[in-house]
Amino acid sequence: MKTRIFVTLKGGVLDPQGKAIHHALDGLGFQGVNDVRAGKLIELDLADDVSDAQIEDMCRKLLANTVIENYKIEKGA
Amino acid sequence: MKTRIFVTLKGGVLDPQGKAIHHALDGLGFQGVNDVRAGKLIELDLADDVSDAQIEDMCRKLLANTVIENYKIEKGA
Repeated sequence: MKTRIFVTLKGGVLDPQGKAIHHALDGLGFQGVNDVRAGKLIELDLADDVSDAQIEDMCRKLLANTVIENYKIEKGA
Repeated sequence: MKTRIFVTLKGGVLDPQGKAIHHALDGLGFQGVNDVRAGKLIELDLADDVSDAQIEDMCRKLLANTVIENYKIEKGA
């Protein structure tokens, strides 16, 4: 079972990586970029018997820092 | 216009970050994890007049290293 975890910074948290990307896009001459936020995508290949609660647990214990990050779980085929 | 870019490593490319996450999940006692791949998620807030071709261009020129990475563009509201 493929499961994708999206980890993004919470709203008020400064994002220097996103800022650097924004600056670089400007430098390359791209117009119309208002904001850039950088996050992580973690693709897990899980056994079929892994429960949703266990996946939540992985996110809270390791994959995301819930003080500054949000996570979203998307279960695939 | 919110646009999300998913950058993932191509199939054959070694992924030490994914491996480290996999190892850490094992160490925390999580069972049933077959594989982990780490990627990037870049959220762009773009002006409405930015074309798809321009977004493709951003990916190829800056956001993804197309030698070793794939990218996927998901346009939101």
